[in-house]
Amino acid sequence: MSAPARTLHLGAILAGVGTTHDDWRDPDLPGDASVDIQWYIDAARRAEAAKFDLVFIVDSPYITPDSAPHFLNRLEPLTLLSALAVSTSRIGLVATLTTSYWEPYNVARQFASLDNISRGRAAWNVVTTGLEGAARNYGRDDHFDHAERYQRAAEFVSVVQGLWDSYEDDAFPRDKAAGVFLDKGKQHPLNHKGRFFSVAGPLALTRSPQGQPVIFQAGDSDAGRDLGATIADATFASAENFEAAQAYYADLKARAKAKGRDPEQIKVFPGVVVTLADTQEEAERLAAQHEAELDLDKLLVQLGRPFNYHDFRQYDLDAPFPDLSHVSLNGYKGHAERIVRTAREENLTLREAAWRFGRWRSGFVGTPEVVADEIERWFVGRAADGFNIHVSKPGAFAQFTEKVVPILQQRGLFRTEYTAQTLRGHLGLPVPANRHAVARTLGQAAE
Amino acid sequence: MSAPARTLHLGAILAGVGTTHDDWRDPDLPGDASVDIQWYIDAARRAEAAKFDLVFIVDSPYITPDSAPHFLNRLEPLTLLSALAVSTSRIGLVATLTTSYWEPYNVARQFASLDNISRGRAAWNVVTTGLEGAARNYGRDDHFDHAERYQRAAEFVSVVQGLWDSYEDDAFPRDKAAGVFLDKGKQHPLNHKGRFFSVAGPLALTRSPQGQPVIFQAGDSDAGRDLGATIADATFASAENFEAAQAYYADLKARAKAKGRDPEQIKVFPGVVVTLADTQEEAERLAAQHEAELDLDKLLVQLGRPFNYHDFRQYDLDAPFPDLSHVSLNGYKGHAERIVRTAREENLTLREAAWRFGRWRSGFVGTPEVVADEIERWFVGRAADGFNIHVSKPGAFAQFTEKVVPILQQRGLFRTEYTAQTLRGHLGLPVPANRHAVARTLGQAAE
Repeated sequence: MSAPARTLHLGAILAGVGTTHDDWRDPDLPGDASVDIQWYIDAARRAEAAKFDLVFIVDSPYITPDSAPHFLNRLEPLTLLSALAVSTSRIGLVATLTTSYWEPYNVARQFASLDNISRGRAAWNVVTTGLEGAARNYGRDDHFDHAERYQRAAEFVSVVQGLWDSYEDDAFPRDKAAGVFLDKGKQHPLNHKGRFFSVAGPLALTRSPQGQPVIFQAGDSDAGRDLGATIADATFASAENFEAAQAYYADLKARAKAKGRDPEQIKVFPGVVVTLADTQEEAERLAAQHEAELDLDKLLVQLGRPFNYHDFRQYDLDAPFPDLSHVSLNGYKGHAERIVRTAREENLTLREAAWRFGRWRSGFVGTPEVVADEIERWFVGRAADGFNIHVSKPGAFAQFTEKVVPILQQRGLFRTEYTAQTLRGHLGLPVPANRHAVARTLGQAAE
Repeated sequence: MSAPARTLHLGAILAGVGTTHDDWRDPDLPGDASVDIQWYIDAARRAEAAKFDLVFIVDSPYITPDSAPHFLNRLEPLTLLSALAVSTSRIGLVATLTTSYWEPYNVARQFASLDNISRGRAAWNVVTTGLEGAARNYGRDDHFDHAERYQRAAEFVSVVQGLWDSYEDDAFPRDKAAGVFLDKGKQHPLNHKGRFFSVAGPLALTRSPQGQPVIFQAGDSDAGRDLGATIADATFASAENFEAAQAYYADLKARAKAKGRDPEQIKVFPGVVVTLADTQEEAERLAAQHEAELDLDKLLVQLGRPFNYHDFRQYDLDAPFPDLSHVSLNGYKGHAERIVRTAREENLTLREAAWRFGRWRSGFVGTPEVVADEIERWFVGRAADGFNIHVSKPGAFAQFTEKVVPILQQRGLFRTEYTAQTLRGHLGLPVPANRHAVARTLGQAAE
């Protein structure tokens, strides 16, 4: 029996006025897009009309006055996606949420509720929070240490997944004549007592048609990749170029395989910005113009973000990238370490590093054919199983869905109609059996 | 100048299969109503068509296998109401959430987000959790002590309200030409350091058209009433009868006045079950039939709920109400104390107490005219400013909106059209000015 053909997946990163400091100045973009539910509903419906797998909400529980506009003022992911759940019918709904500053019981409950409201389309993008300042919003002077954050994350997710199995799928006979609502034998407390969390359960919510919400993961450090390889159904990757994406892809899948998992069951989604035009020259001119409009001061702020908003404006721009041995890397550690390493290996000046890393997004630039070629090259070359497309520029996303998606469909890379009702279905992931039902079956088989 | 006329307010308690053990057996009620978003959308739209002020979601973060069906398996309030926010356009949205097991930063953010998504219709029903077992879902062996719970609640709410004022209303010029998104002088961190919480802020979310979400409060103990009188715009009261409701109303308003508040600015909403029919005899027959169908075992379970599900099935039904001096009252303390006191004063047997308190809802029974008379009597007699109507029996709620509401409208007690866009507007509550804008104005006035 041959393996099923790989199919490309597409996600849309919905971020109102965009994740950079300057996207919001696009004349076609409403300045209040990040807090306008109607902007999100329209964008999600466009992505659904184009048969995208999912919409993706990035998040962080901390801002400074220097944060980019979207971060300064935006809707919260779970409330936002619950509103989108009843404004769409097929597209997956991915919310970023940190394991560092929430209670597992509340997280389990809200995602399970979103999963029921959407009838099986919820996903949780697990992060541990890269900005140390977040600690001060949650009663702590210091952010959790990087290693501890990832240990907490692993236990947190296992508690949440345990709570999601509180009820077997047939726990509720709801027999009005006999007066039996619940089959009590199919309700299971968790009784978890671990290093970081103690949670008794059960959760007061049944499983959705996809069994459990999908798990995304977005950390890029060694610990982050290890967590992803352990728990994730999909990862949100940030890759500078094709080679870096290929290396990440191979590394993640090898880690998953080493843990006894099927590497095809963990999908890699790099985030990309697409700049499209009818001619290659025009697309490159648009990209160059965008570059020219970038403000070096804001690139320096953005460069500082993985270093907990370390202020790079204090250094000489044309001197070598500064020595940061006094700066904590206990934030976006993987990304910060990569910047420091690359700057040293390639002898970058601060100005060069700001231009290269102050944007932190890879991009495809060209005609629809050229962009489709790039997508195919990354997909076939195992640099990606899918892409998370940045959707802030209204014209650019419409062009992508109208001109690039049809080419991907003609090439047989992307679906022309939804064939499933749930996000797991779109991603080709199985519905996990309830652990207690499995235990019951195994028990019977052993008798 | 005369004071504005008082107007009656109506809320609809949406609780899927109902808050009793037996509501779900109604043949017209879908067995999965508590987890079916479409049931809630339809119910909220019916309440909105009848010009209700609000829909109300009760909640608790703890269940036992003996919990009533709705509690065993239900959607979570904030995700649920976010879905309703985009399925309705005028009706207020009230979510119950405990201050004992959440982080203020997350609570502030989710309610502010719901308030923006609904364009000014969100309210938070502040509770401290009456069931001791909840502690074990949140890493604790023991529930917080009753007095400490209420001290935490007061500080928690003040932190949340402080975060809701992080941005002045004109903080975002969004001037694309000048490149100014935020007026940094109008972003305000909170820098709260208190007994229970330390929260730096600011919150990354602007205020809605109603300024801040409305605060409901539902605790009935002495500490609960004091908290309500301090922080609440409205309270969800549970009153056994007219006299008890009047006494509660007078007590709460007196407490508010003693704190320097305008007692008209805190609205009292008793919860009521309505049993309607075309003749008084038929209505009373229906109510009697409902009584006859009640299961004494389940009433005993329900009686035990305010005593942390103490098992009353172990006692002689026809002996005097048992001595509970060994049972913790650190749960629904006000309600538990009232039961113990009443049982002693009136020499109730356990059977009598179960029938009286195992249902914990007051009810209006009769023709539409008689029910309208009762509503008017409670309203004019200052036993209520409004009512939270239980909406689980599909026929009963439709009868209420079709037959009782028009009578209330004819009598000039209830609106025939919405005159406001926000929940504060419906309730006649002012939009609170941003505290920092007020401080600025006062500062200027003093110059």
